[in-house]
Amino acid sequence: MNNGVDNIERMVDILSSLPTIGKKTARRLTYYILKQDLEYANNFSATLIDLVEKVHLCEVCYNFTETKVCKICESEKRDKTKICVVEDPSDVSYIDNTNEFSGLYHVLHGVINPLNNINAQDLKIRELINRLQGVDEVILALNPNVESDITAQYLANIIKPLDIKVTKLASGIPLGTSIEFSDNATISRALEGRVIIK
Amino acid sequence: MNNGVDNIERMVDILSSLPTIGKKTARRLTYYILKQDLEYANNFSATLIDLVEKVHLCEVCYNFTETKVCKICESEKRDKTKICVVEDPSDVSYIDNTNEFSGLYHVLHGVINPLNNINAQDLKIRELINRLQGVDEVILALNPNVESDITAQYLANIIKPLDIKVTKLASGIPLGTSIEFSDNATISRALEGRVIIK
Repeated sequence: MNNGVDNIERMVDILSSLPTIGKKTARRLTYYILKQDLEYANNFSATLIDLVEKVHLCEVCYNFTETKVCKICESEKRDKTKICVVEDPSDVSYIDNTNEFSGLYHVLHGVINPLNNINAQDLKIRELINRLQGVDEVILALNPNVESDITAQYLANIIKPLDIKVTKLASGIPLGTSIEFSDNATISRALEGRVIIK
Repeated sequence: MNNGVDNIERMVDILSSLPTIGKKTARRLTYYILKQDLEYANNFSATLIDLVEKVHLCEVCYNFTETKVCKICESEKRDKTKICVVEDPSDVSYIDNTNEFSGLYHVLHGVINPLNNINAQDLKIRELINRLQGVDEVILALNPNVESDITAQYLANIIKPLDIKVTKLASGIPLGTSIEFSDNATISRALEGRVIIK
């Protein structure tokens, strides 16, 4: 598929190294970029550099930010007694977008995964424990899988003795889908967590 | 979904402007890039600039190249009596990769599409006609759709009077699939173009 133009091949290699982008898509994207002008490329390239140079981790919650402390941690309007713990920075925006939670966040940057050699000390767990002063609830908003369940249990074992409520997101049938298309484990969880209709 | 970090939003906007990349994928890619180091970003950004600055159209066939005339047009080994006409530069690499064709290429940069106001003079058709000296076959390797059929007919009407053979790619059942999964039009074309088993 190589067309012998080095710069095209270099661009295809870089783009196809990105997650979910295969060689064929990378080639299509490269040809799209080739049709743009130099201003487009300059803007794209400056944004890339700015992204990696200026964006770093918030000193408090370890979400991405351009300032020392991120906007959420700095805000006076957030409820500082509740911390929502997530695996990745991207989860913060997904949850905050619901406007359902007005507390603070804490990004672990992964979950405990002994098979991949990721242990508790590789995550921002110590940093979480260090900011629990005045907090009365820690919500574990981790993805529903085995590694996250282990991590949740590990965190609960540390935090509960501090007399802080530890909760996790409800598992169940997602809205907009049907029981027919849900797997057994999801239906079991939904039954387990059934709620009384008031 | 906005997380309030300007550089992240700028990167998401740029990536989601690429074809086949939606907002959600763009966000995932942005977070991936954020986890890379500055060297990665520098390399990515330099490649983007090089791509748009150094790659331009070959003076002969209008394929992308970094030299004045592309490697295929310059090669002594190619059969200069055959020209394969394609819509887009990407088609050249797909066809050349088969090693089935050793002639030259000519990129039209589109097909005639009156609905989108693309006429014959917007394409590299005049440039094709100007290089037909010594050519004995023009192969039209255009995508099988109505606009390409119109373009093929238009080209055939000009080229055939010059006593040059004009051919097109065979339509039919693709290899590896079955008649069951082929649409009516494809089966009709396959029947129409049926070949004698020798």
